[in-house]
Amino acid sequence: MSISSKNRSKIMNLLDPDEFRRQGHMIIDFLADYYENIEKYPVVSRVEPGYLSKCLPDSAPSDQESIETILHDIDQYIVPGLTHWQSPNFFAYFQTGFSIPGMLGEMLCSGFNVAGFNWFSSPAATELESLVMDWLGKLLDLPTSFLFSGHGGGVIQGNTCEAIICTLTSARDKILRRLGQDSITKLVVYGSDQTHCSFQKAARIVGIDPQNFRTIKTTWSTSFGLSPDSLRNVIYSDIDRGLIPLYLCATVGTTAITAVDPLTPLCKIANEFGMWVHVDAAYAGASCICPEYRKLINGVELADSFSFNAHKWLLTPLDCCCLWLKDPSALVKSLSTDPEYLKNEATDSKQVVDYKDWQLSLSRRFRALKLWLVLRSYGEHNLRNHIRNHCGLAKFFGELVVEDGRFEIAFPRHFAMICFRIHPSAVIDNMTIGHVLENRHGEAWKAEEVNRLNARLLEAVNASGRAFMTHALVGGIYAIRFCVGGALVTERHVAMAWKVVQEHANSVLASARHAKE
Amino acid sequence: MSISSKNRSKIMNLLDPDEFRRQGHMIIDFLADYYENIEKYPVVSRVEPGYLSKCLPDSAPSDQESIETILHDIDQYIVPGLTHWQSPNFFAYFQTGFSIPGMLGEMLCSGFNVAGFNWFSSPAATELESLVMDWLGKLLDLPTSFLFSGHGGGVIQGNTCEAIICTLTSARDKILRRLGQDSITKLVVYGSDQTHCSFQKAARIVGIDPQNFRTIKTTWSTSFGLSPDSLRNVIYSDIDRGLIPLYLCATVGTTAITAVDPLTPLCKIANEFGMWVHVDAAYAGASCICPEYRKLINGVELADSFSFNAHKWLLTPLDCCCLWLKDPSALVKSLSTDPEYLKNEATDSKQVVDYKDWQLSLSRRFRALKLWLVLRSYGEHNLRNHIRNHCGLAKFFGELVVEDGRFEIAFPRHFAMICFRIHPSAVIDNMTIGHVLENRHGEAWKAEEVNRLNARLLEAVNASGRAFMTHALVGGIYAIRFCVGGALVTERHVAMAWKVVQEHANSVLASARHAKE
Repeated sequence: MSISSKNRSKIMNLLDPDEFRRQGHMIIDFLADYYENIEKYPVVSRVEPGYLSKCLPDSAPSDQESIETILHDIDQYIVPGLTHWQSPNFFAYFQTGFSIPGMLGEMLCSGFNVAGFNWFSSPAATELESLVMDWLGKLLDLPTSFLFSGHGGGVIQGNTCEAIICTLTSARDKILRRLGQDSITKLVVYGSDQTHCSFQKAARIVGIDPQNFRTIKTTWSTSFGLSPDSLRNVIYSDIDRGLIPLYLCATVGTTAITAVDPLTPLCKIANEFGMWVHVDAAYAGASCICPEYRKLINGVELADSFSFNAHKWLLTPLDCCCLWLKDPSALVKSLSTDPEYLKNEATDSKQVVDYKDWQLSLSRRFRALKLWLVLRSYGEHNLRNHIRNHCGLAKFFGELVVEDGRFEIAFPRHFAMICFRIHPSAVIDNMTIGHVLENRHGEAWKAEEVNRLNARLLEAVNASGRAFMTHALVGGIYAIRFCVGGALVTERHVAMAWKVVQEHANSVLASARHAKE
Repeated sequence: MSISSKNRSKIMNLLDPDEFRRQGHMIIDFLADYYENIEKYPVVSRVEPGYLSKCLPDSAPSDQESIETILHDIDQYIVPGLTHWQSPNFFAYFQTGFSIPGMLGEMLCSGFNVAGFNWFSSPAATELESLVMDWLGKLLDLPTSFLFSGHGGGVIQGNTCEAIICTLTSARDKILRRLGQDSITKLVVYGSDQTHCSFQKAARIVGIDPQNFRTIKTTWSTSFGLSPDSLRNVIYSDIDRGLIPLYLCATVGTTAITAVDPLTPLCKIANEFGMWVHVDAAYAGASCICPEYRKLINGVELADSFSFNAHKWLLTPLDCCCLWLKDPSALVKSLSTDPEYLKNEATDSKQVVDYKDWQLSLSRRFRALKLWLVLRSYGEHNLRNHIRNHCGLAKFFGELVVEDGRFEIAFPRHFAMICFRIHPSAVIDNMTIGHVLENRHGEAWKAEEVNRLNARLLEAVNASGRAFMTHALVGGIYAIRFCVGGALVTERHVAMAWKVVQEHANSVLASARHAKE
């Protein structure tokens, strides 16, 4: 007996090792060439919305196409539509982490393609993840209580939003188990106006009443860190109204300007009220491998969970969000599933971690590999040098900013990001020269004009294709964010980026003057 | 001005293109060798819990290690801890999709490493995803209302749980916006006892009262599909109690036995009550590219959303869950964020899709690439052949099962999975030969004994290392699931797997007989 010969003739070889080798090498060469030439592309893509549907057919082909044809199209149609995140002239947002070992780890992960939902389905995937999370926790000098070796534990999530959904669900259920499900409408969560938007999204998803989401205003007086006094006041007022404080998300290194919430006093207050504290150090967490930055997360020992994205500043490609918890069983209580078709002896023995119960999804990629390859390929010393190198480059950029009297650093630098802008005085001078309607407008108008001019400068810099930066608008000040974090960035690129800024500042200021004349 | 020479000397080259080329080729060769030799490994890993911490140090190295050293360790310590999902002798769970173009697409995704959270951050990532989701939607013959070209739209999620959290949140908020947040405790969601465990988890996460999660019992009379009458009755009883029907998750191809819920009548009932219907075809969805399977999702035009995992049976590595919706704006209303630091002209113009508002997380990988490479590299015809080939192999296995009088097919085959077991008569005969206490025990005891023996058979097969299958326990029957879905599987492997089953059936039956004598 056998399957019909009619079908047999049509059987494709989906994974011929020789063909895998040939095509795999082709892609490696394609990417190596891409990195070699990456500076030739404008950093920000110049395509218009809808460009791709004009280049490609509107349905899949009937018959197979060769990898050569496809690579040609990638070169022709996809690359021009990319904003080049690995370009050394990319200084926008926070970079996505990259490095050779990080990429190799991704390849191995996809190549093995195991779905390590539980220990049994691929023990190495689970055990390496637990091991590497302890390694990394030690590198960051996290309290032992967050490590497996100290009865806590770490897990790799896709991103911060997932990490928050998981911990927030656990915190929520812990209270609801005690007070009953109806209390869900009384639960309140707290962050500052600088907290990442993922927190609000996560709170909405887990069913926190949007009216019970507190966005506490920050100011210059605390350098836009969350003020413990403000937190306490808001909590008191919530309690007075019969609400229940549930969860605080404190941030070390905010997205807009890398501000730092003071963990110790914030955690102490939260602990007083029995709240869960999550520390989101998505970007800045990587720097904790250096003692000089580690002190910024002092107080984390009072928190319940801590996460940072190795896919930002720790040389690891998307996605790799590292989450540690003091009490992983809280997670498991909320997120575990136990369907018959996954039952196995190892799980029953309770001697293993089943990571499906530590995250949202069932399937999970073997992401620990890339993190492990990064940690081993560089080692502690080189990883520290990497962080210090980027901070040094940012400092260098800051010095260039300060040297040019027309500019100022808008917010204090903590890590490898500089927020700068054309100084109001340069704009005002400019406006005076232009004989503008100065007297008819007040300070607010001036501030807006300064912001507008800086926005125009940023637009011009990005349109040049020679550098890509983004902006922040904090405390009424529009600043240009210059973040150093790419795998290919060197001093030359930083210096060149600054030249691009200066050139465009000349023309932006001149054209503003011209417009007013 | 420049950064200090002390730091400069320590600067690593994180992405030297030549080194990338050398090491990249090395990994490709490593993986090609792995596929070539994959049948030499026992399919299921034989390591014991805790094995890895005995092989590896308990902290990261201080200094760098070479890729050669690391690859040696992967070979030595990681590979033995893998259960080999790409082995052609892996017939467990549902397979993770794999193919050469799928892998190449993963490499390009990681290599470009763009974070395409919105259109602006990398237009090609967004536009290719929209395009490829329309391509795939057409291949599956989805109603036009689910495609961008018909004012619906598709998005790639990581997995089904995420897809359900997103759609469930949208459905929930749609009602709560009308009735007020307090009604959250009255919302009820519906599935069957065969619905995937991710549904219950997702419902718990989005704050549905666990008491309002309905698991409707299925029986032999509907081949374990959800009965429309039962659904209606449960809904009526909920409404009578003042509860609000919210969401139905219907399944095409359940995890345990690939049962099929009858979409048309179920959707009609749900529509009557204004509920959201999500169709989860995680595994079976891929088969809809063949007209003979497409009919099983007839009625999907009455649903609100549909998802399937290309990373299961459509040759695409983890992770790639394809979700289509009739009304993506419902998703955006619940999941959108609009922080200042992401503002850009394209978003303001409302001419673009910002996929961050269609999913949980902010960052997202360029997963559309791998799907696009798969669709182009094979084309419609070959993709159909691939599905039919696997179904043919499963049918072939089924014929082998039936030929051996000691076995039976336990549940009807719909796709490429056979659920089989040692027939109760073979066990009973066996017991009779053993002069067992037959008269002292009733039917229930016999049924249990049959299940126990089949479990022992499965254990023996898996312990042999020559094949890996898993089990289902449905309607009181323990069956061995034999799923065909790997990239390397051929008729030879299927035939060999059956031989392994037969051999172990001999010894399991003999030892049971022996024990009783």
